[in-house]
Amino acid sequence: MNFRQTVYEAQEQEILIYNHLLFKLASGQVFGPDQPIALKLLGSERSFEALEGVAMELEDSLFPLLREVSMSINPYEVFQDVEWALLIGAKPRGPGMERADLLDINGQIFAEQGSALNVVASRNVKVIVVGNPCNTNALICLKNAPNIPAKNFHALTRLDENRAKCQLALKAGVFYDQVSNATIWGNHSTTQVPDFLNARINGLPVKEVIKDQKWLEEEFTEKVRKRGGVLNKKWGRSSAASTAVSIADAIRSLITPTPEGDWFSSGVYTTRNPYGVAEDIVFNMPCRSKVNGDYELVKDVTFDDYLLKRITKTEAELLAEKRCVAHLIGEGVAFCDLPEDTMHPEEM
Amino acid sequence: MNFRQTVYEAQEQEILIYNHLLFKLASGQVFGPDQPIALKLLGSERSFEALEGVAMELEDSLFPLLREVSMSINPYEVFQDVEWALLIGAKPRGPGMERADLLDINGQIFAEQGSALNVVASRNVKVIVVGNPCNTNALICLKNAPNIPAKNFHALTRLDENRAKCQLALKAGVFYDQVSNATIWGNHSTTQVPDFLNARINGLPVKEVIKDQKWLEEEFTEKVRKRGGVLNKKWGRSSAASTAVSIADAIRSLITPTPEGDWFSSGVYTTRNPYGVAEDIVFNMPCRSKVNGDYELVKDVTFDDYLLKRITKTEAELLAEKRCVAHLIGEGVAFCDLPEDTMHPEEM
Repeated sequence: MNFRQTVYEAQEQEILIYNHLLFKLASGQVFGPDQPIALKLLGSERSFEALEGVAMELEDSLFPLLREVSMSINPYEVFQDVEWALLIGAKPRGPGMERADLLDINGQIFAEQGSALNVVASRNVKVIVVGNPCNTNALICLKNAPNIPAKNFHALTRLDENRAKCQLALKAGVFYDQVSNATIWGNHSTTQVPDFLNARINGLPVKEVIKDQKWLEEEFTEKVRKRGGVLNKKWGRSSAASTAVSIADAIRSLITPTPEGDWFSSGVYTTRNPYGVAEDIVFNMPCRSKVNGDYELVKDVTFDDYLLKRITKTEAELLAEKRCVAHLIGEGVAFCDLPEDTMHPEEM
Repeated sequence: MNFRQTVYEAQEQEILIYNHLLFKLASGQVFGPDQPIALKLLGSERSFEALEGVAMELEDSLFPLLREVSMSINPYEVFQDVEWALLIGAKPRGPGMERADLLDINGQIFAEQGSALNVVASRNVKVIVVGNPCNTNALICLKNAPNIPAKNFHALTRLDENRAKCQLALKAGVFYDQVSNATIWGNHSTTQVPDFLNARINGLPVKEVIKDQKWLEEEFTEKVRKRGGVLNKKWGRSSAASTAVSIADAIRSLITPTPEGDWFSSGVYTTRNPYGVAEDIVFNMPCRSKVNGDYELVKDVTFDDYLLKRITKTEAELLAEKRCVAHLIGEGVAFCDLPEDTMHPEEM
């Protein structure tokens, strides 16, 4: 497979995510049955015809809430007045490509999109970055949009959280909705930390329900981290449908009340976080909704040595990623000393 | 492109439809928020791994109503006690393949599935045939399932109906939901007849709102018939997402009350129809829901020469298709004299 094919396939995958997500948005599943929807699609020259096809399929679906579908390859046009920006497109790593190269190539995309949002988007816009490496891309994006509050930017970790809840439910033999308080800490990469210390099953600490510590520490964590890769092999492409479901979940979590005592995970800006995580990065942490699209970080979580050690490792990775993209966030010359060549869950 | 590739791509397309439809079913969008769902997937040896991938993505989506996902390549296992059978898989026409060959190859699949439904499905099962040529496949299926009422079998024409409503709404400059009483008569092929004589816009006959008779007779009809083909070219694959939306619409129309004075189109068994259409075929006609999954044919429709002439043509095509598959419906030796080589909407 040559690089051109890889890029083409990536664009195909983006469009597969669009193709699920846009139908959810247009049908009222995400913003509710009373909220009219205008979809503004940012395409590339290459993906434009396919996007037009998606738009035609949206028309043929007769969604009564869908008032407008427009598309352009110019982010300054597409982002005009947007209230929600869902940034999905990114290039995947080509063969022989270092993570540093990937950070640079994709970082440039998100620097450009951040600059455009900064000028033309609603001052209240909420931004969810899905394209990988999503945490560092979200950091680049927010740094290039200084006129928009940094707290408005999210990196998507909800699919990891959903996968963690699924594995805990299957292991405990309970329905999915009996698992709560699941946090994914850190980076959306294989250093991510699915937190089984604070998670609950039927309101009880996971460890009181699943007494197999070895399974929790080894199998569970590995399974969540590598789920995307296993799926990729079976299905031959990345998990577009469940990614779209998790984006819808992430939006709904921000605009509806979080159930009493529960929380959800999102990759958010760390400055003034209560956990001692390094400031000025985008780190997956537990949040509660303020219903209007804003959130607050959860205070009552506990840590043990196992959890802290792993959080430190994923934090170190994000700090190293940040040094790699210094040139894209106005911090001088990039210096890339990534501790090891970790990957995104879909790449495993 | 050789035949093997064509077959492989078809299976991919099936899975793309599954991949949209199963998420709709599991999320409660189709059968409502109080109806638990068990999904039983019929795979082929070739598609099995991909189906397992879809099942994993369903797990990762944490749908609270989803109680079971099972899969098998044996229809006698998969169809056990099913209440709804959505038959999507069919082979597409390969290069140089005659329509007669296609009817035979796919007919065998639907004869086998009908036989299996006849033995193991719920006596109340509703069957929606999506795989093309869907009207004749539905006829074959019901003929091989004599212990299930023929009225329980449908061929999907809802995507054609949705496309017709979309074009009428766009032309009239109204919202989609202001178009009603749209019928697609006949075969799900390029002989299909989108009925603008009985359709209404804001309660008025279409002809009183859109006074451009030439547009209605030529552009509108052609656009609906060829929409799938145009989309196929843009998007590079068939319209899986809007097909899935239309399957969901078709099911919902059968289990919810039809709005006063309105109707929907479905390909149903013609015996004792009030329109004078030939008996003992599966023909797209206007229906009203009896809410429990059953329907009744609408009586108050009008015909003019234009409409009758076209209905006669699509009827002739279905009668010819029936003669081609005589060996699959217990009517002796097939004799294939198809009037011309028409195509399905996606093939144009």
